[in-house]
Amino acid sequence: MIAIINPNASVSMTEQLARECNALSGLHHQLTFHRCAEAPASIEGYSDGVSAAYWVAHKVRQLESGPTPPSAYVIACFDDTGLDGARELTRAPVLGIGEMAMHTATLLCQKFCVMTTLERSVPILTRNLHHYGLASRCAGIFASKVPVLALEQDPDSYQRVLDAARQSLELNNGEALVLGCAGMGQWVRRMEADLSIPVLDGVRIAVTFADAMVGLGLKTSKVLSYQFPEVKAAEPTPTRG
Amino acid sequence: MIAIINPNASVSMTEQLARECNALSGLHHQLTFHRCAEAPASIEGYSDGVSAAYWVAHKVRQLESGPTPPSAYVIACFDDTGLDGARELTRAPVLGIGEMAMHTATLLCQKFCVMTTLERSVPILTRNLHHYGLASRCAGIFASKVPVLALEQDPDSYQRVLDAARQSLELNNGEALVLGCAGMGQWVRRMEADLSIPVLDGVRIAVTFADAMVGLGLKTSKVLSYQFPEVKAAEPTPTRG
Amino acid sequence: MIAIINPNASVSMTEQLARECNALSGLHHQLTFHRCAEAPASIEGYSDGVSAAYWVAHKVRQLESGPTPPSAYVIACFDDTGLDGARELTRAPVLGIGEMAMHTATLLCQKFCVMTTLERSVPILTRNLHHYGLASRCAGIFASKVPVLALEQDPDSYQRVLDAARQSLELNNGEALVLGCAGMGQWVRRMEADLSIPVLDGVRIAVTFADAMVGLGLKTSKVLSYQFPEVKAAEPTPTRG
Amino acid sequence: MIAIINPNASVSMTEQLARECNALSGLHHQLTFHRCAEAPASIEGYSDGVSAAYWVAHKVRQLESGPTPPSAYVIACFDDTGLDGARELTRAPVLGIGEMAMHTATLLCQKFCVMTTLERSVPILTRNLHHYGLASRCAGIFASKVPVLALEQDPDSYQRVLDAARQSLELNNGEALVLGCAGMGQWVRRMEADLSIPVLDGVRIAVTFADAMVGLGLKTSKVLSYQFPEVKAAEPTPTRG
Amino acid sequence: MIAIINPNASVSMTEQLARECNALSGLHHQLTFHRCAEAPASIEGYSDGVSAAYWVAHKVRQLESGPTPPSAYVIACFDDTGLDGARELTRAPVLGIGEMAMHTATLLCQKFCVMTTLERSVPILTRNLHHYGLASRCAGIFASKVPVLALEQDPDSYQRVLDAARQSLELNNGEALVLGCAGMGQWVRRMEADLSIPVLDGVRIAVTFADAMVGLGLKTSKVLSYQFPEVKAAEPTPTRG
Amino acid sequence: MIAIINPNASVSMTEQLARECNALSGLHHQLTFHRCAEAPASIEGYSDGVSAAYWVAHKVRQLESGPTPPSAYVIACFDDTGLDGARELTRAPVLGIGEMAMHTATLLCQKFCVMTTLERSVPILTRNLHHYGLASRCAGIFASKVPVLALEQDPDSYQRVLDAARQSLELNNGEALVLGCAGMGQWVRRMEADLSIPVLDGVRIAVTFADAMVGLGLKTSKVLSYQFPEVKAAEPTPTRG
Repeated sequence: MIAIINPNASVSMTEQLARECNALSGLHHQLTFHRCAEAPASIEGYSDGVSAAYWVAHKVRQLESGPTPPSAYVIACFDDTGLDGARELTRAPVLGIGEMAMHTATLLCQKFCVMTTLERSVPILTRNLHHYGLASRCAGIFASKVPVLALEQDPDSYQRVLDAARQSLELNNGEALVLGCAGMGQWVRRMEADLSIPVLDGVRIAVTFADAMVGLGLKTSKVLSYQFPEVKAAEPTPTRG
Repeated sequence: MIAIINPNASVSMTEQLARECNALSGLHHQLTFHRCAEAPASIEGYSDGVSAAYWVAHKVRQLESGPTPPSAYVIACFDDTGLDGARELTRAPVLGIGEMAMHTATLLCQKFCVMTTLERSVPILTRNLHHYGLASRCAGIFASKVPVLALEQDPDSYQRVLDAARQSLELNNGEALVLGCAGMGQWVRRMEADLSIPVLDGVRIAVTFADAMVGLGLKTSKVLSYQFPEVKAAEPTPTRG
Repeated sequence: MIAIINPNASVSMTEQLARECNALSGLHHQLTFHRCAEAPASIEGYSDGVSAAYWVAHKVRQLESGPTPPSAYVIACFDDTGLDGARELTRAPVLGIGEMAMHTATLLCQKFCVMTTLERSVPILTRNLHHYGLASRCAGIFASKVPVLALEQDPDSYQRVLDAARQSLELNNGEALVLGCAGMGQWVRRMEADLSIPVLDGVRIAVTFADAMVGLGLKTSKVLSYQFPEVKAAEPTPTRG
Repeated sequence: MIAIINPNASVSMTEQLARECNALSGLHHQLTFHRCAEAPASIEGYSDGVSAAYWVAHKVRQLESGPTPPSAYVIACFDDTGLDGARELTRAPVLGIGEMAMHTATLLCQKFCVMTTLERSVPILTRNLHHYGLASRCAGIFASKVPVLALEQDPDSYQRVLDAARQSLELNNGEALVLGCAGMGQWVRRMEADLSIPVLDGVRIAVTFADAMVGLGLKTSKVLSYQFPEVKAAEPTPTRG
Repeated sequence: MIAIINPNASVSMTEQLARECNALSGLHHQLTFHRCAEAPASIEGYSDGVSAAYWVAHKVRQLESGPTPPSAYVIACFDDTGLDGARELTRAPVLGIGEMAMHTATLLCQKFCVMTTLERSVPILTRNLHHYGLASRCAGIFASKVPVLALEQDPDSYQRVLDAARQSLELNNGEALVLGCAGMGQWVRRMEADLSIPVLDGVRIAVTFADAMVGLGLKTSKVLSYQFPEVKAAEPTPTRG
Repeated sequence: MIAIINPNASVSMTEQLARECNALSGLHHQLTFHRCAEAPASIEGYSDGVSAAYWVAHKVRQLESGPTPPSAYVIACFDDTGLDGARELTRAPVLGIGEMAMHTATLLCQKFCVMTTLERSVPILTRNLHHYGLASRCAGIFASKVPVLALEQDPDSYQRVLDAARQSLELNNGEALVLGCAGMGQWVRRMEADLSIPVLDGVRIAVTFADAMVGLGLKTSKVLSYQFPEVKAAEPTPTRG
């Protein structure tokens, strides 16, 4: 079983995730979908991310101690919220949709553009990009200025995101487009048709590759970085707090 | 007032922080000390960090909504746990002891070494180092393999850390030593005497510079990255969770 | 159908590839195996690579103009010989075993080591590593000094490669091992058992992911870098050569 | 006592420096101000810098051999003219206003812009920025094309610099502004009010932090890079020159 | 004797090369000119490059086994097609016109622009630029969109390339122009007059420096990377192909 | 005429330079040799460099205003002391022996080692290396711990430098050796024979290439970075100093 964790609290976004993933054919493992009910309704900026990462870790611990721990995890926020913390808590592979979309883009072109939601997400994604090592292959991370929750609700959103994407690609010689928010995944085919270049949705890619990785027997390394958490020495009774 | 937040739950470590900082002379602002009682007893690895960052944000929100919000914050863990999240929640400057020790080291030498506790912290600190931009000035981040909580309790700890530091400096041409854990701050003078090079303790540096930054009127930018969190649009009543 | 191209001329290595790939379960597409009969018997160094890249392009052109062009290609040499040239010649995705092993390693650990055959391959792989962007995630590329063709024939090869791998991992804090030659793929399970960390064989990974990418409808971008070759203007009759 | 060295010969700029620094409250050490009378009247380009660096070293030697060597030095040119040479000549900490403004900016935002005077200074500052390691945190170094000496004398200067700053910040998503010339320090409050983001003046920051560093007992490392100059072996009598 | 190899099949371009090089005065060695008759008529993109590299290696092998092997080689395509492969096959120095123009540009200015032909060449040249290490000194690689073969034949080409160069230099603060195609070498003096900055033609530079390197006795290192190709172990008789 | 400037005051080192350069055959221009009589006797560390750079600029100004300004300059210290300042003062090309040796090494191998004199020079050369962009091609800069002036006088120097070079090359897979001090140039042939790899002496290379550059008509760009120094506005009479 593969657990897809939506790091935010949104029910509708989790439902949309489930619809998209359940439409994937050829998977070898069952999918389960989880939202983080106590996390913010969307992840926009650092403090949302801090909160969501906490609840992602909580969810992973919960699933790991359950009767059938997942064979793999997908973290379904383009920020890859809480990815490293989650990897520490399990032997199963854990994939972020942001990293999977961006790594895969480098297999299809020399330079990709990322289209995200708000400007405030750009430095967060940029730091991830540098950590993954893919900065030299990214023609830019751009914000459409359409907030996450408007992606579902505002009928003009598609056109605004498409226009922003087209302009970014042209000005920066982008050869493929990475959708920089799980909430944009619904548009992947439509946008690919409109732009005539590969458009990458991290959700489908991460779920499919997680399924493949289980088949290959690939697991998270438990040496050094991702070894299980330390057991803490007990502290003498506190005298004040 | 300057709030020093220990991101972990340890009472004794918070007391030690207070002793060290209260011994600083010439400060212009009062200091208050805070631990994160629900966080782990020490921060060793990613999942400890995820948890502590959550409680740091919680503490900052609490202090910001209190009667006299601090003029500045210091986050007293060498991992700079939750630093960006905290900056988003306040206009006051927020300094991490890790960043302050490493930035300051570049003002005193060309290449510094960092001595931290466990190997598992090295990739976390390395990522910070790259994000701060200081990687080209660091001769290496090394682990003494003495866990955080043993620093206080084990009488042999000092010698083991000193030996590890000396070897790292010699092999890598280090010109200054950065203490890579708040718990080592007690040793700064002794180790400087033993090594005959500058030894930097981020706690003292961050508190002193936070005090100076308040005097200079320097505040966190509230444009783009660190603007206050978004107010979330309400979601229609969930039908399942 | 997915075409696996061995860029060298070796029949036995191609047969070994076929055995390993045909043992993969759960693939959705048929596999065909191709060697480059006019290329060198193994790819060791730049001029071998230049020759093999030529024959890889030749093979791709041949397959593309055949009755059933492949849905995806895998180039089964760890140097990713002729990868960019091949991508230019087809809309199908083309994956190199080197890139796939190294990208995947970053999903399982923070720092991986690569164990290749001869020292002369190290600068070639290093350049690839930098181009893929993964240099900051690689703890080192090391040569076992066992030549490619000896991997099959010399009974001591396994032990020599294992010893070299173990030493490299320990000295460089490697958390996973990437097998840096298609000819080592036969050892992946045995070496994983001996080292107790993830061991990555690019062949299995690339074939499985190519199969998954076809399912996802991901194709090579035909904009800018990988657009089909230019049609050349005719030159006036030469007067000398 | 803290010595503030203006690397150029300008009396009026030195007087302005003194006015600004003497207005700082809360310092623990007395300030002395020094110009380099034989250096150029302003530092614009490489050869001005070479000359000024020479006179800065001369001034430091003079002060070091005087009756009360300074406890710290500030080099008050945004190019950080002669900084490394000065550090070699003393155990006291030596801070450049360029480095201090740029390091501090990274504590308040993710990306800062620098506004300097002439285009010819941009490559010089860029090289410093890379050496300090802060390039990844700088959204750009821009020239207002207002020469140093016009900053004081031309009443339109403020508006021209402000317009150039505003444009640079907007086009490059800058979150704070660093004033790239000591002569702009007079405008720090006014510009902060006009731009509504942090504006950093290296002079005030460097003097305040130098004062704090003395209190912390931080000194220049005298190992390797900044050890005192070599004593030269005598050369046999020259036979020609 | 210095062999100038044109990696493409064009007779007229080879003749133009010969005219330009034979006009150089002061060389100490005779020049011979060679085209790769089986290669494409021009090198535009990866698959052209793969093919041309093959024929360059073939030509070098041919010349090396001839009666008077060259003292040095120049590869006269701005992509430096097959450069590393060629170096493996000879002790003589082998220079690419792309690398020579770009290295030399850094000796004359801080930032140079490159003007090449088609957009598809930009990622290829960018990868070379990074491998040579010169990326931080390049203000940009720009495409005039005039194809190689039109450079000779279309009378408007000069003006279009000049306009594109001027715009690139102005927008990016370029201080020198590198001509990014051997076919532009005919314009070097005219363009230098029109732009009033240094214009660098890799052909003349590479030939002159190759001539100088022979005089200095500088040869390709035959250790590790560029050692002569391995002699391959024989494979047992194939049982299928 | 080509002016070779020794940035230090040493007569014997200048004489040695003259001997080595006058032995070069095939140059098209006359050579003149100049020492900086007021500079230190050798350049070891930052403050020596600051002083020498001043006198290099002085010498260039003197030569430029003389009756026959040089057609090119070579700065004969491996630190490339005062190189940028010198370029600002002339249209003639100015080459440093450090940059020329290191650029040229990348044409002969993938990774070179530099052998310099004292440890304190390593960070200075490292900064140059990064500025030139060649860091990724350098296997390391190593110090023999033999001071500059001992190179001439101490009979054991050769063996000590050779041993240090051999060890550095072996441990770091160096493929060529760059001599990191003008004073080692006397040993270039002997060391090449002893090490069996290319050994590069920047003096011979820079002089030969300067001679070639004059022939090619290549000149320093006078746009932006290296434009001639600004003419300074006059300051009102000083009232204090």
